[in-house]
Amino acid sequence: MFITFEGIDFSGKSTQIKLLKDYITEKGKDVLVIREPGGGEIEEKIRNILLDKKNLEMTPETEILLFSASRAQLVRKTIIPALEKGTIVISDRFHDSTTAYQGYGRLLPLDTVLKISEFAIKGAIPDITFFIDIPVAEARKRKIEQGHDTLDRIEKMEDDFFGRVREGYLDIARKEKRFRILNGCEKKDDVHEMILKELMRTGLTNV
Amino acid sequence: MFITFEGIDFSGKSTQIKLLKDYITEKGKDVLVIREPGGGEIEEKIRNILLDKKNLEMTPETEILLFSASRAQLVRKTIIPALEKGTIVISDRFHDSTTAYQGYGRLLPLDTVLKISEFAIKGAIPDITFFIDIPVAEARKRKIEQGHDTLDRIEKMEDDFFGRVREGYLDIARKEKRFRILNGCEKKDDVHEMILKELMRTGLTNV
Repeated sequence: MFITFEGIDFSGKSTQIKLLKDYITEKGKDVLVIREPGGGEIEEKIRNILLDKKNLEMTPETEILLFSASRAQLVRKTIIPALEKGTIVISDRFHDSTTAYQGYGRLLPLDTVLKISEFAIKGAIPDITFFIDIPVAEARKRKIEQGHDTLDRIEKMEDDFFGRVREGYLDIARKEKRFRILNGCEKKDDVHEMILKELMRTGLTNV
Repeated sequence: MFITFEGIDFSGKSTQIKLLKDYITEKGKDVLVIREPGGGEIEEKIRNILLDKKNLEMTPETEILLFSASRAQLVRKTIIPALEKGTIVISDRFHDSTTAYQGYGRLLPLDTVLKISEFAIKGAIPDITFFIDIPVAEARKRKIEQGHDTLDRIEKMEDDFFGRVREGYLDIARKEKRFRILNGCEKKDDVHEMILKELMRTGLTNV
Protein backbone atom coordinates (compact mmCIF):
# COMPACT_ATOMS: atom_id res chain seq x y z
CA MET A 1 0.00 0.00 0.00
CA PHE A 2 1.32 3.36 -1.05
CA ILE A 3 0.25 6.43 0.95
CA THR A 4 1.34 9.99 0.17
CA PHE A 5 1.01 13.21 2.13
CA GLU A 6 0.72 16.56 0.40
CA GLY A 7 0.32 20.16 1.42
CA ILE A 8 2.17 23.45 1.59
CA ASP A 9 4.99 23.77 4.12
CA PHE A 10 3.90 24.07 7.78
CA SER A 11 0.65 22.23 7.11
CA GLY A 12 1.70 19.54 9.58
CA LYS A 13 2.58 16.72 7.18
CA SER A 14 5.60 15.47 9.12
CA THR A 15 3.65 15.34 12.40
CA GLN A 16 0.89 13.28 10.81
CA ILE A 17 3.36 10.98 9.07
CA LYS A 18 5.07 10.30 12.39
CA LEU A 19 1.78 9.53 14.11
CA LEU A 20 0.71 7.20 11.30
CA LYS A 21 4.07 5.48 11.18
CA ASP A 22 3.99 4.81 14.93
CA TYR A 23 0.46 3.46 14.64
CA ILE A 24 1.37 1.06 11.85
CA THR A 25 4.56 -0.07 13.58
CA GLU A 26 2.61 -0.78 16.75
CA LYS A 27 0.31 -3.01 14.72
CA GLY A 28 3.42 -5.00 13.80
CA LYS A 29 3.45 -4.14 10.11
CA ASP A 30 6.40 -3.15 7.93
CA VAL A 31 6.36 0.52 7.06
CA LEU A 32 8.81 2.61 5.11
CA VAL A 33 8.72 6.40 5.33
CA ILE A 34 10.42 8.37 2.56
CA ARG A 35 10.80 12.03 1.92
CA GLU A 36 11.00 13.76 -1.40
CA PRO A 37 13.33 14.77 -2.90
CA GLY A 38 15.82 12.31 -1.46
CA GLY A 39 16.21 8.65 -0.59
CA GLY A 40 19.16 6.78 -2.04
CA GLU A 41 22.63 8.13 -2.75
CA ILE A 42 21.81 9.59 -6.18
CA GLU A 43 18.55 11.13 -4.93
CA GLU A 44 20.37 12.81 -2.03
CA LYS A 45 22.90 14.34 -4.40
CA ILE A 46 20.05 15.72 -6.51
CA ARG A 47 18.37 16.97 -3.32
CA ASN A 48 21.53 18.89 -2.43
CA ILE A 49 21.45 20.71 -5.77
CA LEU A 50 17.75 21.49 -5.40
CA LEU A 51 17.96 22.79 -1.85
CA ASP A 52 21.28 24.64 -2.12
CA LYS A 53 20.38 28.26 -1.46
CA LYS A 54 23.30 29.33 -3.63
CA ASN A 55 21.54 27.93 -6.68
CA LEU A 56 19.15 30.86 -6.94
CA GLU A 57 19.68 31.01 -10.66
CA MET A 58 17.88 27.73 -11.21
CA THR A 59 15.19 27.87 -13.89
CA PRO A 60 11.74 26.31 -13.19
CA GLU A 61 12.37 23.84 -16.02
CA THR A 62 15.63 22.65 -14.45
CA GLU A 63 13.84 22.38 -11.12
CA ILE A 64 11.04 20.10 -12.35
CA LEU A 65 13.49 17.91 -14.29
CA LEU A 66 15.68 17.49 -11.19
CA PHE A 67 12.72 16.66 -8.95
CA SER A 68 11.56 14.14 -11.53
CA ALA A 69 15.03 12.62 -11.91
CA SER A 70 15.19 12.05 -8.17
CA ARG A 71 11.69 10.56 -8.18
CA ALA A 72 12.41 8.24 -11.12
CA GLN A 73 15.30 6.79 -9.16
CA LEU A 74 13.35 6.51 -5.89
CA VAL A 75 10.38 4.78 -7.55
CA ARG A 76 12.44 2.12 -9.31
CA LYS A 77 15.05 1.43 -6.63
CA THR A 78 13.05 1.87 -3.43
CA ILE A 79 9.27 2.31 -3.71
CA ILE A 80 8.38 -0.48 -6.15
CA PRO A 81 10.69 -3.07 -4.51
CA ALA A 82 9.24 -2.21 -1.07
CA LEU A 83 5.63 -2.43 -2.28
CA GLU A 84 6.40 -5.78 -3.89
CA LYS A 85 7.59 -7.08 -0.53
CA GLY A 86 4.29 -5.99 1.03
CA THR A 87 5.76 -3.05 2.94
CA ILE A 88 3.47 -0.06 3.53
CA VAL A 89 5.18 2.95 1.94
CA ILE A 90 4.45 6.47 3.19
CA SER A 91 5.91 9.35 1.22
CA ASP A 92 6.23 12.92 2.42
CA ARG A 93 5.38 14.57 -0.92
CA PHE A 94 5.27 12.81 -4.28
CA HIS A 95 4.28 13.63 -7.85
CA ASP A 96 1.31 15.79 -6.83
CA SER A 97 3.83 18.21 -5.32
CA THR A 98 5.33 18.66 -8.77
CA THR A 99 1.92 19.34 -10.28
CA ALA A 100 1.05 21.82 -7.54
CA TYR A 101 4.40 23.61 -7.18
CA GLN A 102 5.87 23.56 -10.69
CA GLY A 103 2.62 23.41 -12.63
CA TYR A 104 0.28 25.69 -10.65
CA GLY A 105 2.93 27.57 -8.64
CA ARG A 106 5.58 28.23 -11.26
CA LEU A 107 3.05 28.21 -14.08
CA LEU A 108 4.78 25.60 -16.26
CA PRO A 109 2.45 24.03 -18.87
CA LEU A 110 0.32 21.49 -16.99
CA ASP A 111 0.13 18.90 -19.76
CA THR A 112 3.94 18.73 -19.97
CA VAL A 113 4.25 18.63 -16.19
CA LEU A 114 1.88 15.66 -16.05
CA LYS A 115 3.66 13.93 -18.94
CA ILE A 116 7.05 14.22 -17.22
CA SER A 117 5.57 12.96 -13.93
CA GLU A 118 3.98 9.99 -15.63
CA PHE A 119 7.34 9.10 -17.17
CA ALA A 120 9.10 9.47 -13.83
CA ILE A 121 6.72 7.44 -11.66
CA LYS A 122 6.19 4.47 -13.98
CA GLY A 123 2.68 3.72 -12.83
CA ALA A 124 3.50 3.94 -9.13
CA ILE A 125 0.41 5.99 -8.36
CA PRO A 126 -0.42 6.32 -4.64
CA ASP A 127 -3.38 4.31 -3.38
CA ILE A 128 -4.42 7.21 -1.19
CA THR A 129 -3.20 10.80 -0.85
CA PHE A 130 -3.83 12.93 2.22
CA PHE A 131 -3.83 16.62 1.39
CA ILE A 132 -3.50 18.60 4.60
CA ASP A 133 -5.01 21.94 3.77
CA ILE A 134 -4.23 25.18 5.57
CA PRO A 135 -4.68 28.77 4.39
CA VAL A 136 -1.51 30.53 3.27
CA ALA A 137 -1.92 33.07 6.08
CA GLU A 138 -1.89 30.24 8.63
CA ALA A 139 1.28 28.79 7.06
CA ARG A 140 2.92 32.20 7.28
CA LYS A 141 1.88 32.52 10.94
CA ARG A 142 3.33 29.10 11.82
CA LYS A 143 6.51 29.89 9.92
CA ILE A 144 7.11 33.00 11.98
CA GLU A 145 6.11 31.28 15.25
CA GLN A 146 8.60 28.51 14.60
CA GLY A 147 11.27 31.13 14.10
CA HIS A 148 11.95 30.26 10.48
CA ASP A 149 11.56 33.76 9.23
CA THR A 150 10.73 37.30 10.06
CA LEU A 151 7.69 39.11 8.78
CA ASP A 152 9.52 41.55 6.54
CA ARG A 153 11.19 38.82 4.54
CA ILE A 154 7.87 37.25 3.67
CA GLU A 155 6.75 39.21 0.74
CA LYS A 156 3.62 39.50 -1.26
CA MET A 157 5.08 37.45 -4.12
CA GLU A 158 5.62 34.48 -1.86
CA ASP A 159 2.01 34.59 -0.70
CA ASP A 160 0.82 34.66 -4.29
CA PHE A 161 2.97 31.68 -5.11
CA PHE A 162 1.73 29.57 -2.19
CA GLY A 163 -1.81 30.68 -2.92
CA ARG A 164 -1.49 29.22 -6.42
CA VAL A 165 0.04 26.02 -5.02
CA ARG A 166 -2.85 25.59 -2.60
CA GLU A 167 -5.40 26.20 -5.34
CA GLY A 168 -3.51 23.67 -7.43
CA TYR A 169 -3.86 21.03 -4.73
CA LEU A 170 -7.57 21.73 -4.40
CA ASP A 171 -7.89 21.39 -8.18
CA ILE A 172 -6.11 18.03 -8.20
CA ALA A 173 -8.28 16.92 -5.28
CA ARG A 174 -11.38 17.58 -7.35
CA LYS A 175 -10.04 15.40 -10.16
CA GLU A 176 -8.37 12.54 -8.30
CA LYS A 177 -10.51 10.07 -6.36
CA ARG A 178 -7.52 8.99 -4.24
CA PHE A 179 -7.34 12.48 -2.64
CA ARG A 180 -8.63 13.14 0.86
CA ILE A 181 -8.69 16.76 2.00
CA LEU A 182 -8.00 17.25 5.68
CA ASN A 183 -8.34 20.49 7.60
CA GLY A 184 -4.83 21.21 8.87
CA CYS A 185 -6.13 23.84 11.28
CA GLU A 186 -7.73 21.17 13.48
CA LYS A 187 -5.93 19.56 16.41
CA LYS A 188 -3.24 17.09 15.38
CA ASP A 189 -4.89 14.17 17.18
CA ASP A 190 -8.18 14.88 15.42
CA VAL A 191 -6.44 14.96 12.04
CA HIS A 192 -4.71 11.68 12.91
CA GLU A 193 -8.07 10.09 13.80
CA MET A 194 -9.52 11.22 10.48
CA ILE A 195 -6.59 9.67 8.64
CA LEU A 196 -7.09 6.33 10.39
CA LYS A 197 -10.82 6.44 9.72
CA GLU A 198 -10.22 7.11 6.03
CA LEU A 199 -7.72 4.26 5.81
CA MET A 200 -10.19 1.86 7.43
CA ARG A 201 -13.05 3.05 5.24
CA THR A 202 -11.06 2.71 2.07
CA GLY A 203 -10.45 -0.89 3.05
CA LEU A 204 -7.21 -0.85 1.06
CA THR A 205 -5.56 -2.76 3.84
CA ASN A 206 -6.22 -3.53 7.47
CA VAL A 207 -3.77 -0.91 8.71
CA MET B 1 24.27 31.04 -35.05
CA PHE B 2 24.02 27.77 -33.16
CA ILE B 3 26.18 24.84 -34.32
CA THR B 4 26.18 21.41 -32.68
CA PHE B 5 28.46 18.41 -33.09
CA GLU B 6 27.21 14.89 -32.59
CA GLY B 7 28.63 11.40 -32.81
CA ILE B 8 29.66 8.44 -30.69
CA ASP B 9 32.76 8.82 -28.52
CA PHE B 10 36.11 8.80 -30.37
CA SER B 11 34.49 10.07 -33.57
CA GLY B 12 36.72 13.15 -33.45
CA LYS B 13 34.19 15.77 -32.34
CA SER B 14 36.55 17.65 -30.01
CA THR B 15 39.27 17.90 -32.67
CA GLN B 16 36.84 19.33 -35.19
CA ILE B 17 35.35 21.75 -32.67
CA LYS B 18 38.83 23.05 -31.84
CA LEU B 19 39.68 23.55 -35.52
CA LEU B 20 36.41 25.36 -36.16
CA LYS B 21 36.74 27.50 -33.06
CA ASP B 22 40.26 28.60 -34.08
CA TYR B 23 39.04 29.39 -37.59
CA ILE B 24 36.18 31.54 -36.33
CA THR B 25 38.36 33.31 -33.77
CA GLU B 26 40.92 34.11 -36.46
CA LYS B 27 38.13 35.74 -38.47
CA GLY B 28 37.59 38.02 -35.48
CA LYS B 29 34.18 36.74 -34.49
CA ASP B 30 32.86 35.94 -31.04
CA VAL B 31 32.54 32.24 -30.46
CA LEU B 32 31.47 30.28 -27.41
CA VAL B 33 32.22 26.58 -27.11
CA ILE B 34 30.19 24.56 -24.64
CA ARG B 35 30.16 20.93 -23.73
CA GLU B 36 27.26 18.86 -22.54
CA PRO B 37 26.47 18.04 -19.83
CA GLY B 38 28.04 20.98 -18.04
CA GLY B 39 28.44 24.73 -18.28
CA GLY B 40 27.38 26.81 -15.29
CA GLU B 41 27.62 25.89 -11.64
CA ILE B 42 24.36 23.95 -11.49
CA GLU B 43 25.09 22.12 -14.76
CA GLU B 44 28.51 21.06 -13.47
CA LYS B 45 26.98 19.66 -10.30
CA ILE B 46 24.53 17.65 -12.41
CA ARG B 47 27.43 16.53 -14.61
CA ASN B 48 29.24 15.20 -11.55
CA ILE B 49 26.26 13.02 -10.65
CA LEU B 50 25.94 11.77 -14.24
CA LEU B 51 29.59 10.92 -14.70
CA ASP B 52 30.31 9.55 -11.22
CA LYS B 53 31.27 5.94 -11.79
CA LYS B 54 29.93 5.08 -8.35
CA ASN B 55 26.41 5.85 -9.54
CA LEU B 56 26.07 2.58 -11.44
CA GLU B 57 22.61 2.09 -10.05
CA MET B 58 21.22 5.01 -12.05
CA THR B 59 18.08 4.17 -14.03
CA PRO B 60 17.80 5.27 -17.71
CA GLU B 61 14.86 7.48 -16.73
CA THR B 62 16.91 9.28 -14.07
CA GLU B 63 19.69 9.69 -16.61
CA ILE B 64 17.59 11.38 -19.28
CA LEU B 65 15.93 13.66 -16.72
CA LEU B 66 19.33 14.74 -15.36
CA PHE B 67 20.74 15.39 -18.83
CA SER B 68 17.64 17.41 -19.64
CA ALA B 69 17.80 19.36 -16.37
CA SER B 70 21.36 20.39 -17.15
CA ARG B 71 20.38 21.33 -20.70
CA ALA B 72 17.38 23.38 -19.58
CA GLN B 73 19.68 25.45 -17.41
CA LEU B 74 22.38 25.82 -20.07
CA VAL B 75 19.89 26.90 -22.74
CA ARG B 76 18.26 29.61 -20.65
CA LYS B 77 21.29 30.96 -18.82
CA THR B 78 24.02 30.63 -21.45
CA ILE B 79 23.01 29.64 -24.98
CA ILE B 80 20.05 31.95 -25.59
CA PRO B 81 21.77 35.03 -24.04
CA ALA B 82 24.90 34.37 -26.13
CA LEU B 83 22.93 33.94 -29.37
CA GLU B 84 21.05 37.15 -28.62
CA LYS B 85 24.37 39.00 -28.38
CA GLY B 86 25.34 37.64 -31.82
CA THR B 87 27.91 35.16 -30.51
CA ILE B 88 28.41 31.97 -32.52
CA VAL B 89 27.68 29.09 -30.17
CA ILE B 90 29.24 25.66 -30.75
CA SER B 91 28.07 22.80 -28.57
CA ASP B 92 29.81 19.47 -28.13
CA ARG B 93 26.63 17.36 -28.00
CA PHE B 94 23.11 18.68 -27.53
CA HIS B 95 19.57 17.31 -27.59
CA ASP B 96 20.24 14.89 -30.46
CA SER B 97 22.59 13.04 -28.07
CA THR B 98 19.63 12.41 -25.80
CA THR B 99 17.54 11.09 -28.67
CA ALA B 100 20.38 8.85 -29.87
CA TYR B 101 21.68 7.60 -26.50
CA GLN B 102 18.61 7.47 -24.27
CA GLY B 103 16.02 6.92 -27.01
CA TYR B 104 17.74 4.58 -29.45
CA GLY B 105 20.54 3.34 -27.14
CA ARG B 106 18.66 2.77 -23.90
CA LEU B 107 15.38 2.11 -25.70
CA LEU B 108 13.26 4.65 -23.81
CA PRO B 109 10.03 5.56 -25.66
CA LEU B 110 11.02 7.97 -28.43
CA ASP B 111 7.93 10.18 -28.26
CA THR B 112 8.51 10.84 -24.55
CA VAL B 113 12.23 11.43 -25.12
CA LEU B 114 11.42 14.04 -27.78
CA LYS B 115 8.76 15.65 -25.59
CA ILE B 116 11.20 16.04 -22.69
CA SER B 117 13.87 17.46 -25.01
CA GLU B 118 11.45 19.96 -26.50
CA PHE B 119 10.56 21.13 -23.00
CA ALA B 120 14.23 21.40 -22.01
CA ILE B 121 15.52 23.31 -25.04
CA LYS B 122 12.73 25.89 -25.33
CA GLY B 123 12.98 26.27 -29.11
CA ALA B 124 16.78 26.60 -29.12
CA ILE B 125 17.14 24.22 -32.06
CA PRO B 126 20.61 24.21 -33.67
CA ASP B 127 20.92 25.91 -37.07
CA ILE B 128 23.22 23.17 -38.24
CA THR B 129 24.33 19.86 -36.74
CA PHE B 130 27.47 18.02 -37.81
CA PHE B 131 27.21 14.31 -37.20
CA ILE B 132 30.66 12.77 -37.42
CA ASP B 133 30.02 9.18 -38.30
CA ILE B 134 32.39 6.31 -37.59
CA PRO B 135 31.68 2.58 -37.38
CA VAL B 136 31.52 1.18 -33.84
CA ALA B 137 34.51 -1.07 -34.59
CA GLU B 138 36.58 2.00 -35.46
CA ALA B 139 35.53 3.71 -32.21
CA ARG B 140 36.57 0.62 -30.29
CA LYS B 141 39.94 0.56 -32.09
CA ARG B 142 40.62 4.23 -31.28
CA LYS B 143 39.56 3.72 -27.68
CA ILE B 144 42.14 0.96 -27.23
CA GLU B 145 44.83 2.88 -29.14
CA GLN B 146 44.32 5.88 -26.88
CA GLY B 147 44.78 3.62 -23.89
CA HIS B 148 41.28 4.16 -22.53
CA ASP B 149 40.50 0.53 -22.20
CA THR B 150 41.64 -2.98 -22.82
CA LEU B 151 40.02 -5.31 -25.29
CA ASP B 152 38.62 -7.77 -22.77
CA ARG B 153 36.62 -5.11 -20.97
CA ILE B 154 34.85 -4.08 -24.14
CA GLU B 155 32.06 -6.50 -24.33
CA LYS B 156 29.51 -7.47 -26.89
CA MET B 157 26.78 -5.60 -25.05
CA GLU B 158 28.65 -2.32 -25.34
CA ASP B 159 29.02 -2.77 -29.09
CA ASP B 160 25.30 -3.43 -29.42
CA PHE B 161 24.52 -0.28 -27.47
CA PHE B 162 26.79 1.97 -29.57
CA GLY B 163 25.48 0.27 -32.70
CA ARG B 164 21.96 1.34 -31.76
CA VAL B 165 23.17 4.87 -30.95
CA ARG B 166 24.85 5.16 -34.35
CA GLU B 167 21.73 3.87 -36.12
CA GLY B 168 19.75 6.40 -34.10
CA TYR B 169 21.92 9.26 -35.33
CA LEU B 170 21.53 8.09 -38.94
CA ASP B 171 17.79 7.92 -38.41
CA ILE B 172 17.65 11.48 -37.05
CA ALA B 173 19.86 12.62 -39.96
CA ARG B 174 17.29 11.29 -42.41
CA LYS B 175 14.53 13.29 -40.70
CA GLU B 176 16.28 16.55 -39.84
CA LYS B 177 17.35 18.90 -42.63
CA ARG B 178 19.88 20.61 -40.35
CA PHE B 179 21.95 17.40 -40.14
CA ARG B 180 25.18 16.98 -42.13
CA ILE B 181 26.77 13.53 -42.04
CA LEU B 182 30.57 13.59 -42.17
CA ASN B 183 32.79 10.56 -42.57
CA GLY B 184 34.86 10.49 -39.38
CA CYS B 185 37.32 8.01 -40.91
CA GLU B 186 38.72 10.64 -43.26
CA LYS B 187 41.68 12.84 -42.36
CA LYS B 188 40.93 15.54 -39.82
CA ASP B 189 41.88 18.38 -42.18
CA ASP B 190 39.59 17.01 -44.85
CA VAL B 191 36.71 16.79 -42.38
CA HIS B 192 37.43 20.36 -41.27
CA GLU B 193 37.35 21.56 -44.90
CA MET B 194 34.00 19.88 -45.43
CA ILE B 195 32.61 21.58 -42.34
CA LEU B 196 33.73 25.00 -43.59
CA LYS B 197 32.29 24.29 -47.04
CA GLU B 198 28.96 23.31 -45.53
CA LEU B 199 28.86 26.43 -43.39
CA MET B 200 29.56 28.63 -46.42
CA ARG B 201 27.02 26.80 -48.55
CA THR B 202 24.33 27.06 -45.92
CA GLY B 203 24.88 30.78 -45.98
CA LEU B 204 23.66 30.97 -42.40
CA THR B 205 26.42 33.40 -41.63
CA ASN B 206 29.70 34.46 -43.21
CA VAL B 207 31.75 32.36 -40.82
